[in-house]
Amino acid sequence: MIQLKDIKKPEDIRGLSDDELRNLAEQMREAMLKWVSTIGGHVGPNLGVVEATLAMYQVFDASKDKIVWDVSHQDVAYKMLTGRVDAFLDPKLYRSISEYTFPPEAPEYDLFYAGHTSPSITLATGLAKARDLKGEKYNVVAFIGDGSLSGGVAFEGLDAAGALGTNLIVIVNDNQMAIAEDHGALYDNLRQLRETNGTADDNYFRSLGFDYLYVKEGNNLDAVRQALAKAKDSPKPIVVHIDTQKGQGYVPAERNREEFHYMPPFDLANGLPAENSDAPDYDTLTGKIAMEMIEKDPLTLVVTAATPGAFCFDEATRKRAGKQYMDVGIAEQCGVSVSAAAAKGGAKPIFVVESTFLQRALDQLIEDLSLDCLPATLLVQGTGVYGIPDVTHLGFWDEVQLSHIPNLLYLAPTSAEEYRAMVDWAHQQQNVPVAIRVPGGPYHETLVPVEPNFDSKWQTVQKGSEVALIAMGNMLAVALEAAKLLKDQGINATVINPRFISGVDEAALLALEADHKAIVTLEDSSLSGGFGEKVARLAGPTSMRVKCLGLDKKFIDRYNVDDVLKQCNLTPEGVAATAQELLK
Amino acid sequence: MIQLKDIKKPEDIRGLSDDELRNLAEQMREAMLKWVSTIGGHVGPNLGVVEATLAMYQVFDASKDKIVWDVSHQDVAYKMLTGRVDAFLDPKLYRSISEYTFPPEAPEYDLFYAGHTSPSITLATGLAKARDLKGEKYNVVAFIGDGSLSGGVAFEGLDAAGALGTNLIVIVNDNQMAIAEDHGALYDNLRQLRETNGTADDNYFRSLGFDYLYVKEGNNLDAVRQALAKAKDSPKPIVVHIDTQKGQGYVPAERNREEFHYMPPFDLANGLPAENSDAPDYDTLTGKIAMEMIEKDPLTLVVTAATPGAFCFDEATRKRAGKQYMDVGIAEQCGVSVSAAAAKGGAKPIFVVESTFLQRALDQLIEDLSLDCLPATLLVQGTGVYGIPDVTHLGFWDEVQLSHIPNLLYLAPTSAEEYRAMVDWAHQQQNVPVAIRVPGGPYHETLVPVEPNFDSKWQTVQKGSEVALIAMGNMLAVALEAAKLLKDQGINATVINPRFISGVDEAALLALEADHKAIVTLEDSSLSGGFGEKVARLAGPTSMRVKCLGLDKKFIDRYNVDDVLKQCNLTPEGVAATAQELLK
Repeated sequence: MIQLKDIKKPEDIRGLSDDELRNLAEQMREAMLKWVSTIGGHVGPNLGVVEATLAMYQVFDASKDKIVWDVSHQDVAYKMLTGRVDAFLDPKLYRSISEYTFPPEAPEYDLFYAGHTSPSITLATGLAKARDLKGEKYNVVAFIGDGSLSGGVAFEGLDAAGALGTNLIVIVNDNQMAIAEDHGALYDNLRQLRETNGTADDNYFRSLGFDYLYVKEGNNLDAVRQALAKAKDSPKPIVVHIDTQKGQGYVPAERNREEFHYMPPFDLANGLPAENSDAPDYDTLTGKIAMEMIEKDPLTLVVTAATPGAFCFDEATRKRAGKQYMDVGIAEQCGVSVSAAAAKGGAKPIFVVESTFLQRALDQLIEDLSLDCLPATLLVQGTGVYGIPDVTHLGFWDEVQLSHIPNLLYLAPTSAEEYRAMVDWAHQQQNVPVAIRVPGGPYHETLVPVEPNFDSKWQTVQKGSEVALIAMGNMLAVALEAAKLLKDQGINATVINPRFISGVDEAALLALEADHKAIVTLEDSSLSGGFGEKVARLAGPTSMRVKCLGLDKKFIDRYNVDDVLKQCNLTPEGVAATAQELLK
Repeated sequence: MIQLKDIKKPEDIRGLSDDELRNLAEQMREAMLKWVSTIGGHVGPNLGVVEATLAMYQVFDASKDKIVWDVSHQDVAYKMLTGRVDAFLDPKLYRSISEYTFPPEAPEYDLFYAGHTSPSITLATGLAKARDLKGEKYNVVAFIGDGSLSGGVAFEGLDAAGALGTNLIVIVNDNQMAIAEDHGALYDNLRQLRETNGTADDNYFRSLGFDYLYVKEGNNLDAVRQALAKAKDSPKPIVVHIDTQKGQGYVPAERNREEFHYMPPFDLANGLPAENSDAPDYDTLTGKIAMEMIEKDPLTLVVTAATPGAFCFDEATRKRAGKQYMDVGIAEQCGVSVSAAAAKGGAKPIFVVESTFLQRALDQLIEDLSLDCLPATLLVQGTGVYGIPDVTHLGFWDEVQLSHIPNLLYLAPTSAEEYRAMVDWAHQQQNVPVAIRVPGGPYHETLVPVEPNFDSKWQTVQKGSEVALIAMGNMLAVALEAAKLLKDQGINATVINPRFISGVDEAALLALEADHKAIVTLEDSSLSGGFGEKVARLAGPTSMRVKCLGLDKKFIDRYNVDDVLKQCNLTPEGVAATAQELLK
């Protein structure tokens, strides 16, 4: 029998018998489970596509055909087959590898970084177009989950690929789940297709010019292989729709498909998380606040774009929320636009969304929400350095998305208490759209007293002279510590909580000139396009010197938050040293 | 017979006979044509939906039912029926009214500003959700053109509305055209539906959970009215698909449907533009450059998202470009993603796109293009104050979209010669994605000599002392004039062309401190999030005072470019005065 460790490249599986492949699939699942239970990661999606991945590499020629993975929540079997199996077999190497497709790891196989959902079909279309232009011949394959089909760009890809009319194979891995359950009428169509063995009237894919094959047993290697063999070298676009079992082969993951989409380290024996923390955190608080708003006001509408788990809206909570909860699918454009219009219609929407995904909806933020100046509330999670620390999911550009749009107010609370107060205020007012930067990092119930008028006035937390530390959101705690260090050096720093970061309290800023020589701004997001730059611009004509601290303009991967903050001088010591240097 | 001028509100047409309505439609077309031929505007789409609009307001109750217009290229008939007919009858009032839906004009009817394509269905979904939450009963109607269906957010809306499952009526105005011809496999489906009188297999709308009615004669008032009457009060989402004639009733518009989508002022007698200018301009140049690149290199791929006219790629030119031209439909996400992947596949894509529409593709700019660092070239038109001067189409945020993303280089040429050189360089290099800010405003063949290394070094156009004027793109000419004025005052200003605006030449900036006390930055885009702020941040710790000139953070409508520039001090006099003030 072949050993998993001996698979060095996809070609190594081409001659294997079905018995050997079944045995190999078992080894792959075993390795997957050891790996993921040790360091955490995507469980269900990866377990579900072992057979499909093996089938794919038996049919297609990895040295020539191009395979584009969507979102990479299901790429571990693929990584095992493309020269990276050691990383999943040796616990010492577990952390050496990205969970996402990652071109530097295997440039000949990983064509793109894929972390966000839904781009695989447009990317495949671009590859196919380049192939056709060059007169080359090979298969272009996109592998996409059912959940990812709800993103508008996936539709745009189908529409463009269908029009291109040449070889392009879309494998739809239908495990009947996004992260949580699927939402969208498209999923009724997929269900009808499953229930009719692919023969239902009104086939979404056929309506977009694709040929179509259905595979009922998507975890049956031979069945998938036969369908892919039929699709291979197709002269026109074709969808191979396979019905797979999320979590296949591990009972806890088959039973709790939502929980086991992504798991922190867990006990393989019983599927329970290795650590259970009762410590308060801002994401749990976000879910609590959202539920309180629902209970308090029947017009509250909590909107998500398929990430209810990120704010702890589990199945029971969603049920309790009933009609006041709306999941629009992985479709942030729709999330913003629906929220804007629901506000217009007299509801009070709260759209809870991750910064890294909100970047899909800049047009709707400008045109639908802010130009119409509709009073929806956005709770933006995973902002700045405290977002998801993977290069494909950075949250560094929350200010770039939200701070420069007229009418839109962007608030940055510094503690749980201030966060609650801001949500409360945003939800009650009916004048402007408000986005609130959900705090990250260490949890503070109260950091400084909550003062009103946080939509227009800076809060002077500590009045000093010589140097002012203006620190937004999560960074206020750092500024307060820095001020203590400066005090030890005989410098009595002013500390300011700006509260709103879509503008500047110009009167407060200019008043500083009377007794301050320097300003240090602190933000844990991108310096370029951030809050500090607005302060620097407005202080530019004054005599004050300004130094902005924040994140450098670069893509970083699997980073340690403290290391990054240290490199940017966003530590009490770093801030104090910056202030002293500026005062010299 | 009823007179058009007597229609004050939609209810005024409800009791009219069909003869009266036909007569009214004639009056409407006549007024439309006088208005549009005098001041320019959307011709074909407006002429095509006169009957459908009349039918809609006969069937629906405008005081209760909510109608959401998509993109507003077809809303003139609607405006005439909703209290604004005078503006289309009295030439003195022609310019008093927006061409787009505009809530301040008629708050009870115009629910949203609609200028970008494709949001009507998500907006309608939000309204329907709010209605259901409040337990109210009325019809929610979205009126959308076939072209707009290619935007991903339109799909997201259908998907969400289908899942909502309650009353929502989508009228698909199928005139078989976007601005130019439609692109996308969806349009084959629409064609099949037209050819089978709505009975084709694989109905795109039905696959998304909608009921469906087809109206072959979309310019037959009674036929449309009957279908809408059937759809009215539908307890679930329904599409009414009407086949209309773009340009109906005006022969030149019926014959030249692309040209007459939007026309500058023209002679009603023959349909010829009132003025024909041979003066060179940057958009015409863009088309020329694109064609040159196609002819020079068989791997060049010119991509557009349905706006070939914006760079003068007319039908003949597109035919000549053949396979090297790709229109992805109104789908900018697809445009960026396809361009990125085509570069990966070895083609040399040039995506020509309007700034105001590129804001739909921020996610793809970050995740697909820049993270993967793929050498596609973007030519960004309509940036800053020289973009489309309508509040729904502002191009002020080009820097916000493009300047803060790692790896992506954003260049701002100052003249035709420099523009050509930058495109040439971008197209040849294979290292990074490059966006080029197509110049606007007065045309300069050469303003300053083109120097190499525009991706990393500022160009000192004029070396002086005391004050440095750093002026990007279109604003360099203003800075040069300002420097002359300053010279008259005895101030010998330095003038710098930064050329790349996604970063700062820090060495050059810091070197200024030796003999400069002040810096003035000039940009014709949003100050907030712009180039000047980066300069202000990096100069912050120095002794130099900095003043940034650029556009204020606000939505402005139907503006005059010179007025706006004057208000921002972006005139030679304003810049000179700013510099003098700063030096005091």
